[in-house]
Amino acid sequence: MGDADVRVLSLKNPPSAVGFAAAVGQKEYEGPLGSEFDLHDETGTFGMDTWEKSESEMQRLALNLALSRGKCDPASLEAVFAGDLMNQCTSSAYGLLGFGKPYFGLYGACSTFAEASMLASAMISAGYFQKAAAVSSSHFCSAERQFRFPLEYGGQRAPTAQWTATAAGALILCKEGKGPYITEVMPGVIVDKGINDINNMGAAMAPAAIDSLCTYFTETGKKPDDFDLILTGDLGLEGHAITLTLMKNQGFDMTRVYNDCGLLLYGKESQDVHCGGSGCGCSASVICGHILKGMASGKWKNVLYLATGALMSPNSLKQGAAIPGIAHLVHFSMDRSGENSDA
Amino acid sequence: MGDADVRVLSLKNPPSAVGFAAAVGQKEYEGPLGSEFDLHDETGTFGMDTWEKSESEMQRLALNLALSRGKCDPASLEAVFAGDLMNQCTSSAYGLLGFGKPYFGLYGACSTFAEASMLASAMISAGYFQKAAAVSSSHFCSAERQFRFPLEYGGQRAPTAQWTATAAGALILCKEGKGPYITEVMPGVIVDKGINDINNMGAAMAPAAIDSLCTYFTETGKKPDDFDLILTGDLGLEGHAITLTLMKNQGFDMTRVYNDCGLLLYGKESQDVHCGGSGCGCSASVICGHILKGMASGKWKNVLYLATGALMSPNSLKQGAAIPGIAHLVHFSMDRSGENSDA
Repeated sequence: MGDADVRVLSLKNPPSAVGFAAAVGQKEYEGPLGSEFDLHDETGTFGMDTWEKSESEMQRLALNLALSRGKCDPASLEAVFAGDLMNQCTSSAYGLLGFGKPYFGLYGACSTFAEASMLASAMISAGYFQKAAAVSSSHFCSAERQFRFPLEYGGQRAPTAQWTATAAGALILCKEGKGPYITEVMPGVIVDKGINDINNMGAAMAPAAIDSLCTYFTETGKKPDDFDLILTGDLGLEGHAITLTLMKNQGFDMTRVYNDCGLLLYGKESQDVHCGGSGCGCSASVICGHILKGMASGKWKNVLYLATGALMSPNSLKQGAAIPGIAHLVHFSMDRSGENSDA
Repeated sequence: MGDADVRVLSLKNPPSAVGFAAAVGQKEYEGPLGSEFDLHDETGTFGMDTWEKSESEMQRLALNLALSRGKCDPASLEAVFAGDLMNQCTSSAYGLLGFGKPYFGLYGACSTFAEASMLASAMISAGYFQKAAAVSSSHFCSAERQFRFPLEYGGQRAPTAQWTATAAGALILCKEGKGPYITEVMPGVIVDKGINDINNMGAAMAPAAIDSLCTYFTETGKKPDDFDLILTGDLGLEGHAITLTLMKNQGFDMTRVYNDCGLLLYGKESQDVHCGGSGCGCSASVICGHILKGMASGKWKNVLYLATGALMSPNSLKQGAAIPGIAHLVHFSMDRSGENSDA
């Protein structure tokens, strides 16, 4: 730690996930992970009269559920790290307003849930907080209105496009617990390889994922097969294929262990989502609804989670800029004592 | 630390500001602090062909200047915490892209610079980084286009409106240095008192400032007069008056020491900015261009900086929501050993 050439941050006394939950829309509920999610709303409105308010409400419900699943007294929560895709990150601000907790607003596009988990776990490990939450969300209908066209327009989708997930995930991290633990984190750098196709975000973000993965494996000396699962945030079909191929060229064969949250969330044949899911809520819900539960029940012991984000805006693309990507890394492990004991 | 009832985070071995710089537009250069800013561009374009690119370039210049003012090798910088007002925080993403550093994207509206300083200093104090930067910006022309009307429209401004500053500030924090030090930080909670007048942001944000100030004074037992200066981010004329009055009612008389970055930046009589400055770059430039320089030269020893942010969006207001505010607190002190030695 504290060495300019080292990017991986090993967390002393790794914080434990003690509560986690996901709230999703109907399409996500109908997908292969549907039965694992804690709550769904078949209308996608979550009882609200605008899609933006629906997304806020979904975040509120996810954090409430995570607190209750973890049997955490809401009063014991000391900080919330959260963000979303909406302009001015309003889904988080309005959704989490009622909790009255110290609030760190984040923007990492689809990497936001990893950024929140990274900062929450690092701040707990350092002793600033005993318990903190990481929360993120996205909503298909609010995202379409803001980034593309309102649903009523009925625009056609490109084959490489991804589907913004209607989903929120919340994770309560605590100083003590039975795991899964966050043992290492690594913030990403912004990578811009000149790709400017808004309908192919997977290709735009893959270079950032590859940069973070190569840095991590090189620094730690670990190999892909040391993990039960390596999971990118939401590169989708295109980005997944690019990452797998280019990582192999770099000498890291991830074939056996590599998957992508955007591919896990929806049925490949049965659900018409083209290249897979995306949005802040995509990997947040897959991690909180599926992965952490699987780890807690003994299915996986070591998961490398790498959420990717595309840091452009509709405006920056209109002005001719390319799409910069970033990939933040979080290492979930059931083994707390393995590497980072308090020296 | 780590107590759910305690919100103030005391930083062990407080990190030092080692480099700081501000880049501003012509109006800010013509204001009372003009001569203290490190760079200005009389056209406001900073050589770019869109206002959004100008803002990015201004951020890039500010960070470069802060590195050079602090005689810091750019290679020694281990992380950047940054954000801005533009949708998807693109001023920061594109402006800081070229530095190739681990990047934490933040959104706290006008409180972003305090949020960045808070997280950067806490992460350094914990030993994760030796050197990290906090950066933020705003640009009058990009903000008008996004939040209100494009300049060409010539819309009239309300008397309680504030003027979005064309300014960027960058602060390099380091494990070691001669000060000013960040000795304490306190993340704010989101406060919503039902105010929904977009032309009176000072009134909307004042309750958050009052909440954070009262919490800080109550927890630490300190009094306003223990500080040479208490500085809110940009509450402007309205918010400053509300805060002063309501704090007095709470038993904290700040008359002698209280000022506001939004009031310091522009000439009250000579410059037509109605209620004062605002925007992420307002307090960032006042802190980096004026306050830290004054502290380093012995003018002030203890400054309590409290940046306020309004967490609404144009969209959320159209949908009938009020304006939630937040106020993050950063305590700058020339006395490192006073309170937080490594026990």
